[in-house]
Amino acid sequence: MKNTFGHSVAVTLFGESHGEAIGAVVDGLAPGIPVDEAFIAAQLDLRRPFGKISTPRQEADPFRIVSGCFAGRTTGTPLTVLIPNGDTKSKDYSKTKDLARPGHADLTAQMKYHGHQDYRGGGHFSGRVTAALVAAGAVAICALERKGIRIRSHIRACAGVEDRPFAGEQAGLLADFDALKGSRFPVLDTAAGDEMQKRILRAAEEHDSVGGVLETAVCGLPAGVGEPWFDTLESLLAHMLFAVPAVKGVEFGDGFALAGMRGSAANDPIRAENGRYITETNRSGGINGGISNGMPVVFRCAFKPTPSIFREQRTVDMNTGENASLSLEGRHDPVIVHRAAVVVDSVTALVLCDALALRYGTDWLAE
Amino acid sequence: MKNTFGHSVAVTLFGESHGEAIGAVVDGLAPGIPVDEAFIAAQLDLRRPFGKISTPRQEADPFRIVSGCFAGRTTGTPLTVLIPNGDTKSKDYSKTKDLARPGHADLTAQMKYHGHQDYRGGGHFSGRVTAALVAAGAVAICALERKGIRIRSHIRACAGVEDRPFAGEQAGLLADFDALKGSRFPVLDTAAGDEMQKRILRAAEEHDSVGGVLETAVCGLPAGVGEPWFDTLESLLAHMLFAVPAVKGVEFGDGFALAGMRGSAANDPIRAENGRYITETNRSGGINGGISNGMPVVFRCAFKPTPSIFREQRTVDMNTGENASLSLEGRHDPVIVHRAAVVVDSVTALVLCDALALRYGTDWLAE
Amino acid sequence: MKNTFGHSVAVTLFGESHGEAIGAVVDGLAPGIPVDEAFIAAQLDLRRPFGKISTPRQEADPFRIVSGCFAGRTTGTPLTVLIPNGDTKSKDYSKTKDLARPGHADLTAQMKYHGHQDYRGGGHFSGRVTAALVAAGAVAICALERKGIRIRSHIRACAGVEDRPFAGEQAGLLADFDALKGSRFPVLDTAAGDEMQKRILRAAEEHDSVGGVLETAVCGLPAGVGEPWFDTLESLLAHMLFAVPAVKGVEFGDGFALAGMRGSAANDPIRAENGRYITETNRSGGINGGISNGMPVVFRCAFKPTPSIFREQRTVDMNTGENASLSLEGRHDPVIVHRAAVVVDSVTALVLCDALALRYGTDWLAE
Amino acid sequence: MKNTFGHSVAVTLFGESHGEAIGAVVDGLAPGIPVDEAFIAAQLDLRRPFGKISTPRQEADPFRIVSGCFAGRTTGTPLTVLIPNGDTKSKDYSKTKDLARPGHADLTAQMKYHGHQDYRGGGHFSGRVTAALVAAGAVAICALERKGIRIRSHIRACAGVEDRPFAGEQAGLLADFDALKGSRFPVLDTAAGDEMQKRILRAAEEHDSVGGVLETAVCGLPAGVGEPWFDTLESLLAHMLFAVPAVKGVEFGDGFALAGMRGSAANDPIRAENGRYITETNRSGGINGGISNGMPVVFRCAFKPTPSIFREQRTVDMNTGENASLSLEGRHDPVIVHRAAVVVDSVTALVLCDALALRYGTDWLAE
Repeated sequence: MKNTFGHSVAVTLFGESHGEAIGAVVDGLAPGIPVDEAFIAAQLDLRRPFGKISTPRQEADPFRIVSGCFAGRTTGTPLTVLIPNGDTKSKDYSKTKDLARPGHADLTAQMKYHGHQDYRGGGHFSGRVTAALVAAGAVAICALERKGIRIRSHIRACAGVEDRPFAGEQAGLLADFDALKGSRFPVLDTAAGDEMQKRILRAAEEHDSVGGVLETAVCGLPAGVGEPWFDTLESLLAHMLFAVPAVKGVEFGDGFALAGMRGSAANDPIRAENGRYITETNRSGGINGGISNGMPVVFRCAFKPTPSIFREQRTVDMNTGENASLSLEGRHDPVIVHRAAVVVDSVTALVLCDALALRYGTDWLAE
Repeated sequence: MKNTFGHSVAVTLFGESHGEAIGAVVDGLAPGIPVDEAFIAAQLDLRRPFGKISTPRQEADPFRIVSGCFAGRTTGTPLTVLIPNGDTKSKDYSKTKDLARPGHADLTAQMKYHGHQDYRGGGHFSGRVTAALVAAGAVAICALERKGIRIRSHIRACAGVEDRPFAGEQAGLLADFDALKGSRFPVLDTAAGDEMQKRILRAAEEHDSVGGVLETAVCGLPAGVGEPWFDTLESLLAHMLFAVPAVKGVEFGDGFALAGMRGSAANDPIRAENGRYITETNRSGGINGGISNGMPVVFRCAFKPTPSIFREQRTVDMNTGENASLSLEGRHDPVIVHRAAVVVDSVTALVLCDALALRYGTDWLAE
Repeated sequence: MKNTFGHSVAVTLFGESHGEAIGAVVDGLAPGIPVDEAFIAAQLDLRRPFGKISTPRQEADPFRIVSGCFAGRTTGTPLTVLIPNGDTKSKDYSKTKDLARPGHADLTAQMKYHGHQDYRGGGHFSGRVTAALVAAGAVAICALERKGIRIRSHIRACAGVEDRPFAGEQAGLLADFDALKGSRFPVLDTAAGDEMQKRILRAAEEHDSVGGVLETAVCGLPAGVGEPWFDTLESLLAHMLFAVPAVKGVEFGDGFALAGMRGSAANDPIRAENGRYITETNRSGGINGGISNGMPVVFRCAFKPTPSIFREQRTVDMNTGENASLSLEGRHDPVIVHRAAVVVDSVTALVLCDALALRYGTDWLAE
Repeated sequence: MKNTFGHSVAVTLFGESHGEAIGAVVDGLAPGIPVDEAFIAAQLDLRRPFGKISTPRQEADPFRIVSGCFAGRTTGTPLTVLIPNGDTKSKDYSKTKDLARPGHADLTAQMKYHGHQDYRGGGHFSGRVTAALVAAGAVAICALERKGIRIRSHIRACAGVEDRPFAGEQAGLLADFDALKGSRFPVLDTAAGDEMQKRILRAAEEHDSVGGVLETAVCGLPAGVGEPWFDTLESLLAHMLFAVPAVKGVEFGDGFALAGMRGSAANDPIRAENGRYITETNRSGGINGGISNGMPVVFRCAFKPTPSIFREQRTVDMNTGENASLSLEGRHDPVIVHRAAVVVDSVTALVLCDALALRYGTDWLAE
């Protein structure tokens, strides 16, 4: 069940960058969830290249829902989103297919698939495949929003510039969410965002690329979701987050910073307020013992820089087994972290739908 | 399948701190793996309290293998390790059971289990339950070592002091592994280790606790292990690592630091050497596109400080719903990161056994 | 996940006939289900040998619940039942261990485990291991009964004698259930039962054994449980039923007889009655399209005769590879179908708990 | 993971009869398996209506492989087969959609999906969805044949007429396989087949339908495949077989007949022959203790009669809750058992690919 994740709501992903189509099957969604195709399209747009800082492949993502949707709502049977690949024959890969691109999966794909992989444009490893996750995740996001659960990511750091963190208290956090809505370069501090983009362009001019950190928050998640072993809420989220291309680190709450604190500073004091329990701080990121505590769930993902750069790189020819050098051509993104925000939101939504359906039953999400 | 993890080699964990026993079932181990009870005992010892910096509960862990082992070897059927709990009646919990300890799972357990949880000593959430993982993992570690795959963790940071990182090249790394063998406070730089322990004792004197970072390396893992979606090697490892109590962050290779690099610095150049492919640096931590590349797999886990501290803390009484204050008594560890090293090694071994059995078949580990 | 079954409520089974203990872990049971140890013991008694027609190994099954139970109720964490094996050293297997017993798993175990299996008394394949399933299933049965869901099996056929089928209408069926309660040789027609037992004894005198058919009914299961693909309710039940030793056939409703009918006779007419929908007949066994329809779920399992017989049999010596002959000694059951009834009830209960928890959420069973 | 089955090789099924497309994703197939599109088309043809005894909807199944195949071979990544639905708007369902068809899943779908199901032509429950299983299974069948593993089904019984059983010995069985190849009404005794067809036509003239029994054999399966608990080979096969629409019974080897035998007749004597172990008879159907023994695996599935008949039937109106009568119009198959043979072969192949990949590793099938 490698390409399928989830117990009660499970997503299966398929497709290659230059194959006929990519797609995703979401099984186990409650029957009766509205399927908002305009919202799916809008989410897909957030993942598409943007302005000067992205590759200009401006192909729209003409998704089709080929199963699991009837009269505008989920049927309860597997919902399948299909995104046909458009112009896929534009390039000749014969010269470069044996040169393993450093930082990419070319070498590991060769070792795993013994030369049978579709090498064109990264094949099954291509970031393009995340478009299907975004389309599938859009339905999950809609379902969660109807239950008062909202998810949003912003660029916490990029190219050496930091955005301010999410507001700690509920009202401020929701205001932050509103401010980020629809943004294709989601930052809370626009000056920081401008500086990030300046530096991204400079890196691009220098034939280089940059990475970044996304910070994600979930509001409205009920307490009591997740398991002590082994399906902690952190485990489930991290499992999916580390499947997003380029993610090399995940931390919850104050994360690695907690390792340097004392317990007296790290523990979140608990308080009764308006008939419910809250914590005065949220250094644990809304999760204790693997289970949600009702506070916002907050985490950060580290994205490495885009591996496709235009400088000459040392590598090997996988056909001859000899050392070689590689100079990429064409156009490549100098950064992908802003486009990854909607991908992170999407996989987060899929994980939460699964955990909630498992906890409250298969119909709960549509009730 | 909450408390069970793995597809081909699966571990199931059970037990509460003050119940009759804790234990683990490992299903799918190849038949014929030697079961070295002395090694299991030694690994359990590494997890036990140590010297002045740990709680003096000196209870040995009298494990018994109650199934799946015959004539000193695995049978191929589920191997069950049982660790009876010793003196479990020593304490009266009636006064404190309703006071949710900040940083612990008391509140979330209450929300999930509605008061039916075994609250004594943390119950099913207790770090003690990891002893069963260590016992089960010891068999996995032995099996891997026979295939030339070695795993070792050291304390990369603790109480504000840093240990040096693992050596980058193979020979140095294996020397590091040898140096760490059997250490109950595993550091590469003993001066740093001494300073860590000093600061831990100071924190303890101040009725406080500290956290830390473990760095783990795996040597000898074949290339080609892991999946692009969703079972990347990072995903599988992170899933289990985030189930280890107190882990709040996981990063692979250069992890979060990669987010601040340029692509030209982050990409690992590839080279042919002695008939195989290596990377000149290992910033990716031995994993590209979710699949092992044959280089050492390197990752770090952030542990928050032990939440049990002796200072008065603000909390709630879960019975009355009122605000309250809590002052812990008894004795508690001011740090657990050194004891967690063997736990991390163990879950890493279990994840790798699963991934390898899936890739090479159920008998491979014993061949 | 070979020895683990279930998604939301999952059972893991372990142990060998002559190892230290057998046991089962049930994960995912709702917190707060009463754990009735007397009922567990009574269920275990139903599985134990009985009168003249069974082997006289009269060892009680001294089970212990070592986790997941606190203050007499499930905690919501894994419930583990352990049954230590008693006198396990009584026999010398050195003479017979290489002679594959026809009809047993000796030969296939050798091929799968390459000689590392525990061969004593059937090892992990022993029917004795079902005792752990019965203990675990007893908790599931209690939970279901509190929700108005009852399960009962009777011997529909044995040694060439047929018992009458379960009553078709609800009231008669519940009366049948009451009549069967606690019976160690569960039949509805006592004359048929007497004749069965006579023939069993005759077979035993002739150093032979007999098989039989169990018929099981489930009352009170809500409509809407099960999936169209691939987890039909029939699929889930059959998966577990075919794991019960000696089961070689499973049929639902009129089963194989339906294959000889015309559609006009096989279709169950539907009727509205007292605000709910019922079917006038129940040839489908309460399941349409893989989903429960609210009528009693009815199925039958075919058990082959006990393979241990005292006649000389042709076989092979797995050590020498030569043909050989085998004459069993000791005492063996001439029939096991009556003892299997409680095993079938138990696995049925475990499957239903899983399907119901998946549908209605993890807490539903205890609400 | 309701619509996904398998651990190492997993199939996910999606689609509705009158939706845009049906399809299947097969994940985990070894890289390098030839994908023979002509064979897939031929297998799909075997599932299509045939002559007078089937509904004349003669729509071809224009499948497309949209992922996981490159240069004519599997890539090792998910292989997706898509079958667009052709003329899907031909019928007005408004009159009949609330009348639950007896023997169909209309009522249970309503109870499960609360009216959100796609009711047109049976929706997700339609037998048409099996076309995707057949296409996916065709790749699995090819892979198995390259490893010397062959699967074939024939109509053991239909409309009260019996075909002779498969030959018991290997040479005869393979001759039977050859005789059945490509048959759209697969029987071993053509006279019996003619009589079956006569009776089917008679039933059709009488506005009725018939059922039947398929017998399936697998040759060449290695010994040692399957698990004692709970994934016995019988369990895995039965799980998938009971997901095939209309299957109400499954038995292995002599199945239900074994229940009436004595042990001395039921046990298969074992013999060494040409350096391997065989059984002299094969009443166990090639499986002991849940594990293949190297003999042919033989099983039978009971199919109930097609529920769509033209006689007036008693049912309910699910909108008004009132009793009603239903007279179906249009054209419907009076029998489907002959078309189901290739479906059974397909799911059998998918189950075996999974079990073999789990046992021998992910690459084995293509080696």
